[in-house]
Amino acid sequence: MSQQHETHNRRLKLLRAAMVDAGFYGWIIGREDMYQGEEVPAGDERLAFLSGFTGSAGFAVVLADRAALFSDGRYSLQMAAQTDSAIWQCFTIPDTTFEDWLKTATLPEGAVIGVDGRLITVSLFRRVERSVLAAGANLVCHGENLLDPLWPDKPAMPPAATWQMPVELAGKAVADKIDDLAAQMSAKDCAAVLLTRVDVVNWLVNMRGADLPCTPVNLCFAFYHKDEGLCLFGERARLAPVIGADISVAPLSELPERLCRLGERRLMIEPDSLPRILFDQIAASGVKTLETDCPLAPTKACKTPAELDGFRAAHRRDGAAMVEFLCWLDKAVAASPATYNETEIVDRLLVFRQQQDGFLAPSFETIAGSGPNGAIVHYRAVAGADRRLAADDLLLLDSGAHYRDGTTDITRTIAIGNPPVGAVAAYSHVLRSHIHLAAAKFPVGTNGQQLDAIARAPLWSAQLDFAHGTGHGVGHVLSVHEGPASISKRGKVALEVGMVMSNEPGYYQTGDWGIRTENLLVVAASPAGQFLQFETLTLCPFDRRLIDKSLLSSTEIDWIDAYHRTVYTQLHPALSSAAKAWLASACRPL
Amino acid sequence: MSQQHETHNRRLKLLRAAMVDAGFYGWIIGREDMYQGEEVPAGDERLAFLSGFTGSAGFAVVLADRAALFSDGRYSLQMAAQTDSAIWQCFTIPDTTFEDWLKTATLPEGAVIGVDGRLITVSLFRRVERSVLAAGANLVCHGENLLDPLWPDKPAMPPAATWQMPVELAGKAVADKIDDLAAQMSAKDCAAVLLTRVDVVNWLVNMRGADLPCTPVNLCFAFYHKDEGLCLFGERARLAPVIGADISVAPLSELPERLCRLGERRLMIEPDSLPRILFDQIAASGVKTLETDCPLAPTKACKTPAELDGFRAAHRRDGAAMVEFLCWLDKAVAASPATYNETEIVDRLLVFRQQQDGFLAPSFETIAGSGPNGAIVHYRAVAGADRRLAADDLLLLDSGAHYRDGTTDITRTIAIGNPPVGAVAAYSHVLRSHIHLAAAKFPVGTNGQQLDAIARAPLWSAQLDFAHGTGHGVGHVLSVHEGPASISKRGKVALEVGMVMSNEPGYYQTGDWGIRTENLLVVAASPAGQFLQFETLTLCPFDRRLIDKSLLSSTEIDWIDAYHRTVYTQLHPALSSAAKAWLASACRPL
Repeated sequence: MSQQHETHNRRLKLLRAAMVDAGFYGWIIGREDMYQGEEVPAGDERLAFLSGFTGSAGFAVVLADRAALFSDGRYSLQMAAQTDSAIWQCFTIPDTTFEDWLKTATLPEGAVIGVDGRLITVSLFRRVERSVLAAGANLVCHGENLLDPLWPDKPAMPPAATWQMPVELAGKAVADKIDDLAAQMSAKDCAAVLLTRVDVVNWLVNMRGADLPCTPVNLCFAFYHKDEGLCLFGERARLAPVIGADISVAPLSELPERLCRLGERRLMIEPDSLPRILFDQIAASGVKTLETDCPLAPTKACKTPAELDGFRAAHRRDGAAMVEFLCWLDKAVAASPATYNETEIVDRLLVFRQQQDGFLAPSFETIAGSGPNGAIVHYRAVAGADRRLAADDLLLLDSGAHYRDGTTDITRTIAIGNPPVGAVAAYSHVLRSHIHLAAAKFPVGTNGQQLDAIARAPLWSAQLDFAHGTGHGVGHVLSVHEGPASISKRGKVALEVGMVMSNEPGYYQTGDWGIRTENLLVVAASPAGQFLQFETLTLCPFDRRLIDKSLLSSTEIDWIDAYHRTVYTQLHPALSSAAKAWLASACRPL
Repeated sequence: MSQQHETHNRRLKLLRAAMVDAGFYGWIIGREDMYQGEEVPAGDERLAFLSGFTGSAGFAVVLADRAALFSDGRYSLQMAAQTDSAIWQCFTIPDTTFEDWLKTATLPEGAVIGVDGRLITVSLFRRVERSVLAAGANLVCHGENLLDPLWPDKPAMPPAATWQMPVELAGKAVADKIDDLAAQMSAKDCAAVLLTRVDVVNWLVNMRGADLPCTPVNLCFAFYHKDEGLCLFGERARLAPVIGADISVAPLSELPERLCRLGERRLMIEPDSLPRILFDQIAASGVKTLETDCPLAPTKACKTPAELDGFRAAHRRDGAAMVEFLCWLDKAVAASPATYNETEIVDRLLVFRQQQDGFLAPSFETIAGSGPNGAIVHYRAVAGADRRLAADDLLLLDSGAHYRDGTTDITRTIAIGNPPVGAVAAYSHVLRSHIHLAAAKFPVGTNGQQLDAIARAPLWSAQLDFAHGTGHGVGHVLSVHEGPASISKRGKVALEVGMVMSNEPGYYQTGDWGIRTENLLVVAASPAGQFLQFETLTLCPFDRRLIDKSLLSSTEIDWIDAYHRTVYTQLHPALSSAAKAWLASACRPL
């Protein structure tokens, strides 16, 4: 048995002992922290700590006599590869669900399954509880995590790096945002609200931080009471420097005393983000609640003119970084592609971005998929396990950054040598889909589901499709994935002026190559009447070596040429002379 | 006071007396019959009988001291025009709802509002009951209609005209359809089903009739018990001639004895179509029920190859009728358009259709909207109140027929003289939308909501839109509007091979003209893989005088030319020589 397996098995044994002490027949371990972000602080990576599985999604269930690991199709192989098969049964959802599996276990009468109530939301608790009850057991929220005593050297939070988003960039003062919040609450007859979305809280008080590698936020909740004002639940030392004097900071343990002061009045809460344990505290206090979606998420999604100017400025600098990189890449691989592997490409691109003013951090872990890795939609190159570039590869490169004034997320597919068979036609159809969305006009009230179909239609005409959404919302120096709108089959929310959305159709030929072409767009009013349209923010040429003009209409060709003219005009002043020449050639009319 | 108003007021007085006798403070009158069709037998037009309002949708509520009429925006003016304003308050939904209004009435304690339980579905009863309860009253289902004793000379049903749909045209024998039904019921653990959709019942037993002017069906329900077989609830004299010996016919009053024999086993019912009074009988019998959508509607919607061949043959003959008509129209109006009014146009077109083999009836009341009437989406020309054609009109003509082998529904917009300003551009964009849907390929699982967006995209690009759905399902010699799929913002059902759908985008310039271009399509598998596409059934040229080629792509022009070649090839053999020459010119390449 490997040493790693030994370590994890020992932890599992200790966990089972702790379960017995606490009276639990079963214990659930997720990958979440209390703030429910896509990124998790290192000290909250309990799933990996216990099982060895390092995937970004999944959960484990430990019973007295068996242990199961669940994740989605992205991680089927990884789960099995990383865990001790003598101990862990691995299951892919939805082929096998937690409920399916739990029903196969023989549970004693009155068996109790426990979960750390700080790390599970009210909505998820309710869903899991239904499954547990269906299997004949009970689900109980525990105030502590049974794993934490086994992890005395757990990594600490990074040092505080809080800063104020200036009102010139935010476009709206904190006091005005709070006034809007108060009005929303009055409309719903609530005297207070508990805000449990980290990006919303940071946005509300115009502050940013660096608590997570790719999300420049401070991890904290907020409580707003219309008579008492706003209070952040977090560490005073970390937060006080960046907030106004009229905003207080308190530890989360002070929530109950604030609840007491509500009396008969209603508290607005969001089950999708509220930790179950806080919900139980609220219930115990007798405070009346209104369960609703976060009232600020829609407002935050519609960027102010100042935020949009910030996005535009950031995109000019990010575009310069991309062009310098692409210029370098063309030369670097021209002679010998195999000189570079995927992680080296990722590192090189990061250096170009770091050279730009106002760079804060990547907005997510770069995807660099060369050759067949491009067809694995969630692929991330891992040093030591990555692929060397080869002649006649496609390279799919999806990357982005947070700058002080805006966030970027761009995908370009690059020809390394001669394009493989079928790639040019597929690339051209993907580009058509991209253009049809970028150029769309649509009435007020149109939702992402409708736009998703409009985007897919050109690919579908060629009997091609892609198994992910067309686009997601993007936050303003917050989270690169931002709701409530999305351009996808599930996109039920209407798109509104000021929303920043990605436009990223693709096509993946499993085992061979993958293509994705992504820009960010802003929803804008069209010059006349009740229609909306998109303004493209991203500035970077498409790879003309992958475009077959004969597959494009004259309107589509005109769109590409106009876009490339804009790219050249906007970017060339800040480029090195080599990059400027490269860009002039890349942007010449098709 | 007009004589008509006198008559209606007298009826209202008698109704109120009957309400008092029956213990009702209020009484609801809809336009529905027990079979809930879009068409209602003349003897069920109780709303018009009582109030004078003849719109196709709406309901009245009579209280002891007031009377209200509700309908949608199509009928706001008509309601007011046709009723005595001293008696009837008229309201447009959703501006004012029934619940809004009821709450303004002072209802005595324990007030009971009654409704004829045969004429209201379970689903609608539940919705209305919520409103009534919210207003502090109770809703009760009554076994009789308080109006019927006041209408001793109510029109009778038309004479029976039942006929058998031959299995060569149906493509599936009744016994096989019943076997499929039995399998569906087993899968849902039901021993019996009460089928309360008329088109489904007729389809199931391969019979047709003429109980309604534009719907060739026999009005009846069906009860299937897997041990006892199939029973139709209707008149034996009308139905027995066209059904197999193993199918019984009984009066609806015999439902309770069949329920008794179910014992502990489950009955499948459909709340959206089941009359409330039957639901109450079922509840009283103690029989266990499963509430579900009609299990046969999805099967019926996917036409057999034989049904599709029937549609194709019917469309060849209907196309010939349309072409003969359009040829006649061009000559007739060339000299003097004002010779004809809209109802004369409607009559003339019907004559051409009646000349075709197998013609049964129109599939709906023809819409002939000339000039500004074309912009009124629900407009129907009424003799004596219709408009005379004028030079430089557009004529919007939406018509169709049931033949013994298939059903048609086609809209053409025709230039009468010179097209009005703006009409050619709008027509061309509408045609582009039509083409984009007709030519679409889409993956299995795509729903009508997605296709609706793909259809609208070209109109939206020109900042135009239309305020109705893009398409509805069409039955096979049943109802011209058939679920469960639709191509609209609410189209949640996936389109499947064999579904016949309309493709009818439009654009309406209020006060001036209206444009709609409609063909019927069949969903077909595409030659390769998991994609679907459409085959166009309708054969009739588009009006080239309204097409601006400069607004079309070369792909769109090619599509029109290919379509017109098909139209000519398919239709010309059966045409008169004048029509043949007209068609050759109409179908020449753009």
